Amino acid sequence: MQTAAERVRVLVHGASGRMGQALLRLAGERDDLSVVAAVSRTQPAQRVVEGVAHFAAAELGGAPEFDVAIDFSLPEGFDGILGLCERRGAALVSGTTGLEANQREALQAAAARIPVLWAANFSLGVAVLNELVERAAAALPGWDCDIVESHHVHKKDAPSGTALALGASAQRGGAQPRYASLRAGDIVGEHLVQFAAPGERIELVHRATNRDVFARGALHVAARLAGRAPGAYRVRDLLG
Amino acid sequence: MQTAAERVRVLVHGASGRMGQALLRLAGERDDLSVVAAVSRTQPAQRVVEGVAHFAAAELGGAPEFDVAIDFSLPEGFDGILGLCERRGAALVSGTTGLEANQREALQAAAARIPVLWAANFSLGVAVLNELVERAAAALPGWDCDIVESHHVHKKDAPSGTALALGASAQRGGAQPRYASLRAGDIVGEHLVQFAAPGERIELVHRATNRDVFARGALHVAARLAGRAPGAYRVRDLLG
Amino acid sequence: MQTAAERVRVLVHGASGRMGQALLRLAGERDDLSVVAAVSRTQPAQRVVEGVAHFAAAELGGAPEFDVAIDFSLPEGFDGILGLCERRGAALVSGTTGLEANQREALQAAAARIPVLWAANFSLGVAVLNELVERAAAALPGWDCDIVESHHVHKKDAPSGTALALGASAQRGGAQPRYASLRAGDIVGEHLVQFAAPGERIELVHRATNRDVFARGALHVAARLAGRAPGAYRVRDLLG
Amino acid sequence: MQTAAERVRVLVHGASGRMGQALLRLAGERDDLSVVAAVSRTQPAQRVVEGVAHFAAAELGGAPEFDVAIDFSLPEGFDGILGLCERRGAALVSGTTGLEANQREALQAAAARIPVLWAANFSLGVAVLNELVERAAAALPGWDCDIVESHHVHKKDAPSGTALALGASAQRGGAQPRYASLRAGDIVGEHLVQFAAPGERIELVHRATNRDVFARGALHVAARLAGRAPGAYRVRDLLG
Repeated sequence: MQTAAERVRVLVHGASGRMGQALLRLAGERDDLSVVAAVSRTQPAQRVVEGVAHFAAAELGGAPEFDVAIDFSLPEGFDGILGLCERRGAALVSGTTGLEANQREALQAAAARIPVLWAANFSLGVAVLNELVERAAAALPGWDCDIVESHHVHKKDAPSGTALALGASAQRGGAQPRYASLRAGDIVGEHLVQFAAPGERIELVHRATNRDVFARGALHVAARLAGRAPGAYRVRDLLG
Repeated sequence: MQTAAERVRVLVHGASGRMGQALLRLAGERDDLSVVAAVSRTQPAQRVVEGVAHFAAAELGGAPEFDVAIDFSLPEGFDGILGLCERRGAALVSGTTGLEANQREALQAAAARIPVLWAANFSLGVAVLNELVERAAAALPGWDCDIVESHHVHKKDAPSGTALALGASAQRGGAQPRYASLRAGDIVGEHLVQFAAPGERIELVHRATNRDVFARGALHVAARLAGRAPGAYRVRDLLG
Repeated sequence: MQTAAERVRVLVHGASGRMGQALLRLAGERDDLSVVAAVSRTQPAQRVVEGVAHFAAAELGGAPEFDVAIDFSLPEGFDGILGLCERRGAALVSGTTGLEANQREALQAAAARIPVLWAANFSLGVAVLNELVERAAAALPGWDCDIVESHHVHKKDAPSGTALALGASAQRGGAQPRYASLRAGDIVGEHLVQFAAPGERIELVHRATNRDVFARGALHVAARLAGRAPGAYRVRDLLG
Repeated sequence: MQTAAERVRVLVHGASGRMGQALLRLAGERDDLSVVAAVSRTQPAQRVVEGVAHFAAAELGGAPEFDVAIDFSLPEGFDGILGLCERRGAALVSGTTGLEANQREALQAAAARIPVLWAANFSLGVAVLNELVERAAAALPGWDCDIVESHHVHKKDAPSGTALALGASAQRGGAQPRYASLRAGDIVGEHLVQFAAPGERIELVHRATNRDVFARGALHVAARLAGRAPGAYRVRDLLG
């Protein structure tokens, strides 16, 4: 186990949301990081955690020192946390969706000065699957590629961001993926990438059965992103 | 299309067997190779192919010039074809099963002088799957690894040679695979390699629905093995 | 084994098509029926089978006595074979697609006088699956129902006729199915019917890997339809 | 919504266990039943629920009136709750595992006087699957039948009780099932029953992703068992 002084110091941005609460709950599983601050929009997160400084987004400048911020908030809060990370020279891990084009550009520009990572999905399994899909597509030229994603009935967008990311991986390998989407029950998230040729087929599947895997994945990459050279990283860069 | 002079010249050893017949039938699909000789145990292969020299194994020395031999025969014929390839400086692709330890050693020794390749499965999909499995196992330390293979009810050995090869790939990546085998109907061959952790799972599946994929794969690697430097190659070395 | 006199006498209509050829080839597997006549559009079927009367559709009236006709032809030939069956008091099994509304009505009307059966899919597995789907839908009110079908890339229509039939089975059980279609490789035909509720899911899958199952199924139901009371039968009525 | 007077009155036996806690937590979802008593081994259940009489098993005789008991306890407590149900003329739903032979006989004998139901699995999906499996097996004579079950790595027994029950369903339909078991990650429970013949296959799958489905199923059958004629019921008898 590492001493407190050696641990990566984490600021959780969006601490009152579902992901933020999961991050605070699961951070204790790791001995290589400590949450030092929890920021929520207008007031302290509902479930105050001991030893963690809780404060509102408006007072972001008063946050204690940290090595990496994990941001699962809303687009309107994104500029604030990005600016803070740049001023502090800290890393930024973000899963905030719906960013504007100029926010994405600002993130890209910041990558010249600090390590940043934005992803649609933080499960380690999906990160590995992206890599396998790119490799398979490259090794199987001419095979038909189909992507099927299944999620709970409350999910509005289709195909899922993760399916599109898998499709981009397939395209980098040279495939032309097609998409199908199912919405059923309370499925957390399932993705199938299929490659087919006459007489044989490969199916690459990821099934998430518990949302905690996304929070655990974000903590994992945050611990590994802190202290790296500036740049735009992907989840898969920080595996293994 | 390549001219005849540029094509790889192939000798089929075990030409009267099921795989041999498939090789002779499917070789015409490719314009980068030509079958120049077909060897069967004691007599010309039943279905004589025009433009191909058919003769019995006993007269192997009289075979015309060739660049690569594809061998799907029996252990008792293996020494003959290996020796011929060495004398001619030709490559050898073999899928003959049940080789004795000393035959495997002879193959290894020959790899110092000619390019050789032995495999349990010649489908390109399985070759790619082996690579994906090794990569996944390396990227997912601590995940449970299970391999399930399904074949037709007439298959005697279990787990299949392909399942064991996939298990070896998983082990190279650091996993400890467990095996389960199903025998049902006329399933040509299906292999599932599953990696599981709390809350998520990856399933990597290959389904063969037509035995021709194995003959097509052998022809593919033969075309690419001919003319290479001496060495022991794997199917996956010759992809992409 | 039954003597020739006890066997059901079959007339194959559309004998030169892919299904017709398969019917002639596979009829010999059964000892409860004999093909006595093979009708093709304008000339004897290419592969004449011994002991079978081959003739052109124009001479349909000259066909020998038969107990059941199996029709996999084209809409323009349908009226002829239906009329012949009615005049002879023989049963009719048909898988001809693209029938006009008035042809379907004529078939329905004929069911008052002879036993008839029309189906989109003659595999026994799909017939059983239809029954299971209806039962599952009735037993799982409120569960989400999705149908995914996969076929080879040359299949034009989507969803497949079989998927629509499965959807109708689900609807009879009270479900509201949604459809997704994949077109990949040379997949003969795969159908998944999924029922999902919070926390659990049922998946009912049929995989056809060889087109012969369709011809075998048609022969099976023909053997059982001959001699029945007049009526419109379904494949599943003739199982078990 | 039904008035309190019309609701089925439930006694939860084994209230401090994982299933007992889930029963108390989820009973509020239904308006056709009310939990009136919660019995735990030696002391009130940890989380006392308002409006519910909590007491220890030793004081079972003092329980208020109830229509049905739901028992997920241990074999040593089984005789007590069975006797109480008989004296009160109440129904009994039990999922207690590891019963002795004489306890099973006592349950069977009690079925002459009160309605009883014992099951290895209370998910509605598995109950439906059992019915589908029996029907499929009966409709597909001669097809190979395989059952594959997957559970978390902490599950000790294999095959699972649910797999054995599915196998018994298949046998009632005339099939001879074979079993395979996987233990991986934190899989709640997955069961595949496969029927295979040359050229086609049917796969019937149930996936449980949340243990609450078992408690919800027990509440469902309890609400329907209360007030029935004496007898030994199965989960599937109370569906639809």
